[in-house]
Amino acid sequence: MSETAEVTLYYAPGSVASLTLQIVLEEKGIEYTTKVVDEDKPSKEFKNLCPREEVTSVPVLKHGDFVLQEFMAACIYLEETFGGTKLIPDDDITSEALVLQRMFSAQSIGVGDTTICSYWADYDDEDDEDYGPEDEEEDEDEDPDEEDAKEDLAEELMIWEEYLKEEGGPFIAGKEFSMADVSFFPVLAYVVWMGFQPKKAYPHLNDYYLAVRDRETVQAVWPVDWNKPCPEKDFLYLEEYLEEDEEEPKPKAKSNDKGKAKWKGKGKGKAKGKK
Amino acid sequence: MSETAEVTLYYAPGSVASLTLQIVLEEKGIEYTTKVVDEDKPSKEFKNLCPREEVTSVPVLKHGDFVLQEFMAACIYLEETFGGTKLIPDDDITSEALVLQRMFSAQSIGVGDTTICSYWADYDDEDDEDYGPEDEEEDEDEDPDEEDAKEDLAEELMIWEEYLKEEGGPFIAGKEFSMADVSFFPVLAYVVWMGFQPKKAYPHLNDYYLAVRDRETVQAVWPVDWNKPCPEKDFLYLEEYLEEDEEEPKPKAKSNDKGKAKWKGKGKGKAKGKK
Repeated sequence: MSETAEVTLYYAPGSVASLTLQIVLEEKGIEYTTKVVDEDKPSKEFKNLCPREEVTSVPVLKHGDFVLQEFMAACIYLEETFGGTKLIPDDDITSEALVLQRMFSAQSIGVGDTTICSYWADYDDEDDEDYGPEDEEEDEDEDPDEEDAKEDLAEELMIWEEYLKEEGGPFIAGKEFSMADVSFFPVLAYVVWMGFQPKKAYPHLNDYYLAVRDRETVQAVWPVDWNKPCPEKDFLYLEEYLEEDEEEPKPKAKSNDKGKAKWKGKGKGKAKGKK
Repeated sequence: MSETAEVTLYYAPGSVASLTLQIVLEEKGIEYTTKVVDEDKPSKEFKNLCPREEVTSVPVLKHGDFVLQEFMAACIYLEETFGGTKLIPDDDITSEALVLQRMFSAQSIGVGDTTICSYWADYDDEDDEDYGPEDEEEDEDEDPDEEDAKEDLAEELMIWEEYLKEEGGPFIAGKEFSMADVSFFPVLAYVVWMGFQPKKAYPHLNDYYLAVRDRETVQAVWPVDWNKPCPEKDFLYLEEYLEEDEEEPKPKAKSNDKGKAKWKGKGKGKAKGKK
């Protein structure tokens, strides 16, 4: 296998992790073939990629004979193996640490039982019986879990707003576009697509979103569906959830410490869950 | 900041992610200071590490002024920044891809709603009212979620048994001890501590466990508590969950596809959840 061996990306348009890998491939100027995977009806070719695994989910990167199913591993692999834009700095360890930290940290946004996306996932799965009229209407009887989820997401995103504000950006880990942006931007773009409007309370995030969205490499792989709002939700007002917390943030355990075992299978999700 | 700047590890003994970072530090021969963190009563020093974040969980790595809260990011950072044992090969891209793939893949084992560790976490949190007598006794009325969780874990671990069997080991990504072992071994050791007995159905995993446990760098950081079985569970027989599946593995969706949104906040946890 060499750098010139064929690179194939099996992906789903509108999948955050797929978009992440697509941006890496574009930034690094790698020639690659794409194959869209319908996760509900995966092709035999796709299912055969990893014969030992019961379930293979997108994205999967194939380079020559080697198959990478873990998209974060694939990001690092592409960075180490190919030229093009340097996405993880290797000439300054402070910058490198910052990029790596934010690259991984971005993957924690909105993940777990306490987030809006999890709420949406649950919501879609319910028979809708507990839910009254919604959309546009301030409903006093809103699900408290949904409220908590929105509040958490509002606060998580404010951390990223502060990064841009305090450090001056224009990118999420400084002056250069990096793997931190590759990891963070698709998450932000997804939340915007779901109805988050950063303009008012998150002005730096708003500018960042608009600038990165218009980046040539990002435009090249932008999911067509994301050009119109997500049909599932119209608006996601997060600003209102910030007000009460701005002066005195309450110490809230995001990862529920259930029991004594150090390895928690729930809460903030994978890596963090196991801390 | 330079390679000689002070390295401090804030950790919890018996935390899988902490053990992972401890092994990296030992393998790379890095001089470091450790500070034990009681996550229920974290010190002010620990809480001040990341002022923007509401919650900081262990492990956290501090190098000079820079703080890395994401342990997978910290692993890669240490690998790139320090000498000592080379944990991610950079002379052969096939080996590199394999190590990265397994490094990240190991973090998916036993994570999510459908795993034994999640079951334990829930179990600890309950008032025990739904649970009859347990320990040693085969209880026909066992929680079906627990059964599914054990079956999933049994199957996940069999994938790793096959890696060792088919590729001959002795390590999880080939002939050299690598970041794949650093990531996988603490997960395996945790499950063994919780009562998993690999000897019968997982002979390669058993040999691997014994060999890596006795490795000098691992012994240097081995959690004292893990020298006796976990008091919460005595035995975790997984073999029985393999039998029915060995001939014809049923296609089972591990990550529940709830709704149309591509970004799922639940299920297999962080990174995978967002695929």
